[in-house]
Amino acid sequence: MNGAELALRTAVLNGVDICFANAGTTEIPLVAALDKEPGIRCVLGLFEGVCTGAADGFGRVLDRPAMALLHLGPGFANGIACLHNARRAMSPVVNVIGEHASWHRHADPPLNMDIAALAGTVSGWKRTCRSHRSLSRDMAAVIAAGARGQVASLIIPNDHQWADCADIPVIMASPSFEPVDLEAVDRAARVLRTGRRTAMVLGGRALRIKGLLTAARIRAATGCDLLANSFPGYVDRGGSLPAVTRIPYFPESAMELMARYDVVVLAGAWDPVTFFGYEGVPGSVIPDGAAKIAIDHSGQDVSEALEALADCVGRPGKAAVAKGCGTYAKRSSLPTGPLTPETVSAVIAALQPEEGIVVDEGLTTSFPYYPLSHGCAPHGFMTIAGGAIGYGMPCAVGAALAAPGRTVINIQADGSAMYTVQALWTMAREDLNVTTLLCNNGGYRIIAMELERAGLTDPGKAARALVDIDSPPIDWVDLSRGLGVSATRVEDARALAREMKRAMKEPGPHLIEMMIKR
Amino acid sequence: MNGAELALRTAVLNGVDICFANAGTTEIPLVAALDKEPGIRCVLGLFEGVCTGAADGFGRVLDRPAMALLHLGPGFANGIACLHNARRAMSPVVNVIGEHASWHRHADPPLNMDIAALAGTVSGWKRTCRSHRSLSRDMAAVIAAGARGQVASLIIPNDHQWADCADIPVIMASPSFEPVDLEAVDRAARVLRTGRRTAMVLGGRALRIKGLLTAARIRAATGCDLLANSFPGYVDRGGSLPAVTRIPYFPESAMELMARYDVVVLAGAWDPVTFFGYEGVPGSVIPDGAAKIAIDHSGQDVSEALEALADCVGRPGKAAVAKGCGTYAKRSSLPTGPLTPETVSAVIAALQPEEGIVVDEGLTTSFPYYPLSHGCAPHGFMTIAGGAIGYGMPCAVGAALAAPGRTVINIQADGSAMYTVQALWTMAREDLNVTTLLCNNGGYRIIAMELERAGLTDPGKAARALVDIDSPPIDWVDLSRGLGVSATRVEDARALAREMKRAMKEPGPHLIEMMIKR
Repeated sequence: MNGAELALRTAVLNGVDICFANAGTTEIPLVAALDKEPGIRCVLGLFEGVCTGAADGFGRVLDRPAMALLHLGPGFANGIACLHNARRAMSPVVNVIGEHASWHRHADPPLNMDIAALAGTVSGWKRTCRSHRSLSRDMAAVIAAGARGQVASLIIPNDHQWADCADIPVIMASPSFEPVDLEAVDRAARVLRTGRRTAMVLGGRALRIKGLLTAARIRAATGCDLLANSFPGYVDRGGSLPAVTRIPYFPESAMELMARYDVVVLAGAWDPVTFFGYEGVPGSVIPDGAAKIAIDHSGQDVSEALEALADCVGRPGKAAVAKGCGTYAKRSSLPTGPLTPETVSAVIAALQPEEGIVVDEGLTTSFPYYPLSHGCAPHGFMTIAGGAIGYGMPCAVGAALAAPGRTVINIQADGSAMYTVQALWTMAREDLNVTTLLCNNGGYRIIAMELERAGLTDPGKAARALVDIDSPPIDWVDLSRGLGVSATRVEDARALAREMKRAMKEPGPHLIEMMIKR
Repeated sequence: MNGAELALRTAVLNGVDICFANAGTTEIPLVAALDKEPGIRCVLGLFEGVCTGAADGFGRVLDRPAMALLHLGPGFANGIACLHNARRAMSPVVNVIGEHASWHRHADPPLNMDIAALAGTVSGWKRTCRSHRSLSRDMAAVIAAGARGQVASLIIPNDHQWADCADIPVIMASPSFEPVDLEAVDRAARVLRTGRRTAMVLGGRALRIKGLLTAARIRAATGCDLLANSFPGYVDRGGSLPAVTRIPYFPESAMELMARYDVVVLAGAWDPVTFFGYEGVPGSVIPDGAAKIAIDHSGQDVSEALEALADCVGRPGKAAVAKGCGTYAKRSSLPTGPLTPETVSAVIAALQPEEGIVVDEGLTTSFPYYPLSHGCAPHGFMTIAGGAIGYGMPCAVGAALAAPGRTVINIQADGSAMYTVQALWTMAREDLNVTTLLCNNGGYRIIAMELERAGLTDPGKAARALVDIDSPPIDWVDLSRGLGVSATRVEDARALAREMKRAMKEPGPHLIEMMIKR
């Protein structure tokens, strides 16, 4: 057994069963070892952003890490934008990066880079393997670190991958969270019991079924409202789960919402701040004078902290808990007419299947979707989390591999789609049940809106040229077919509904290019 | 005048006239300022790797920097792989990266990242602008730094872009190289005069016309051979220029070549080492006991050092200098038959036009091309330099914009092309005279070769799945048309010659998908 075989053996023993890869010469032993390790499935991405984004999507759905196998510094760099989203989504992701042989690195060969510096910008945990003797320990450690809901990165020099490891035991490590901070929980409980107007902002595991059910108990006992950051990583939604209000993207709406509260309790959530800094607008959307209490910090399991909090604030009756939770009632009806953000969102909300997974990178097109889908059947929902565009199609790849029985619907803005368009090929190769609803509005609409906000209501030629991507128009049907995914174009809501039904019924990936009315 | 306008004014005054951009909210003032600054042309890339790669290609052709305008950390990260190649190509590149308002960054909004850490991995010079008062000085400094043949990066917080700069003067800075190290030159001259078998390895500016003509003088005076690293950034070739031998990629061939020499003189070149570390193979390809002398180091202008060296070693006659230089004689004839690395390379060498620019990312398909094209008419030639795949199509964009009158031929491997396929759209949008010769061999052939080298002559299913990209096959004609570039497919050398002639005659971009026989 060589080092690479030992590393993969360790990965499987520690619960990793899939590897999204784009490997090169420095990872050859790991590539070869994949053939000896049936416990790990290997999926090729034609660009590293596809691999890291897919690992993120997989992690968000199953709450356990997939592995991304990447080639040296440039390969890792190509995966950083998607890892940035994974970090903000608190998604469990394990990166394994091949490095030059430890004895060759000082020669500074052409591909040499400071991989550790790159890894540090997105990883909650990182390490360079120093010897084949520690390889299994390092591998177990990176998986345990990733499993705590963070990006974890291990750099393995090529010589350690080749080294003879016959006598080295395979290490198992249990991911362990830090204990709940009972003092913080108690502080929050005391404030919640005062009856002051309170928003509980949920994030990370608090937005999964268990966390949400606990949060519903706390709401019933205290009357608090349940919110989430603007761009949560993964939310279980629909059915009888409590509806969670996302803090709006634009600061004025966000501040209007938050002005209702005297107290903000953070449970696995990021501090609610504006997405960008706007002159004359405060950076925090929490009103001056409001109290802010976090019941957990990174490294802890927020769902445990929520349980402790629920125990502190009392036991409401079942009827009280159910109040405000979903009832399947608000099934939206199928609209007709041109494709607008409203009609597109309504069609999706009306047709999305039970236990589907919606990967939302529709940006301006899908703004209306979230509230419209509160009353839908149970489903998973994910957003861009870190704001780095191009996350949608790779995440859809990972989601479909994580849950082969669930239909994945990717609402996908065109400008963002171009960033990681290579993901379509992996969908075709793996025959994934992904329906991509491509929002063709011919531009970076969100930037056009921000230009307007900045007072540039009549942008000049140069500014428009950086926002419009319709000259030449991208033909998404050709593009998609070129990458092996069958595709069709629709111009109105009725056609969208027809094609969406058809796409979800047929196995394998489909792309529907929606010509959005501007 | 606000900070953004001041920054662009400074850029123009310091000789920057093109900006490859993919901007977002944090760069809005710069986007708006582009409309007030007619001296700078703005070109949109649909992925940041296109922007940085194009800036690299532009810099390689003109030996002066273009600007890449990038959005925060994730935007910069997407450009790193191409910047890595630019760094190894010693290409002049200026990055301007928008950052959150300085007062907002501490709030850690979703897109917040350590941009400086990212920039440090590829930049020879980096700075974060601390005040609008220093903005013009910072901008002049980043351009002067880039002009010295390196990647230079300036991070500009959004509030400094908006700040009133009416009273702040526009700064001009002259790029200045460090003085030539005359001692090093003298050492090299003394060794060269001993008549020992000497290889002079040229790199950076030494491979441009002026440097090459000086190198030819030194060769005539001393009998040294002229070599280059395996992957030089930019080489002026053909016509009456001296032919330069590239050190082969595979270590055995490289060591066989270098075994001929007792002395290796480095002139603007990287230390010749193997591309990867192979067990049992030395990292350096210079034989034990051979002397190694560098006549320059980074920050100096190697063409000046070469001049000084030529002056030291004496003045050979014109005939002696011309010996070994090109004569246009070896025009290769047009082959027929299936498309193989040999026939493809021969067709290109036979048809490439005078003053064309060849961007070679053909990898295994174009291995035979370089020696075949020694006798061609004058042309520019560039390679992958840092080994980060995906450089070719973006570099072709930059080259075509740098030299609109010259035909750009991009020999482009399929696996690498997928990394930055978005570049095709910019070619269409800007109507660039680029002929992309897409080498469809359905796989990462170079990795298959490295697998074989490692003894894996019969790779298993998993290993093959990471090397073959032909299932599903990528339809490059559909893909290219989807992005606005007309495309055709050829199956043999005669059809390639026909389509290549047609493509070069018609203005605008064309893609020819070459079905390479495996």
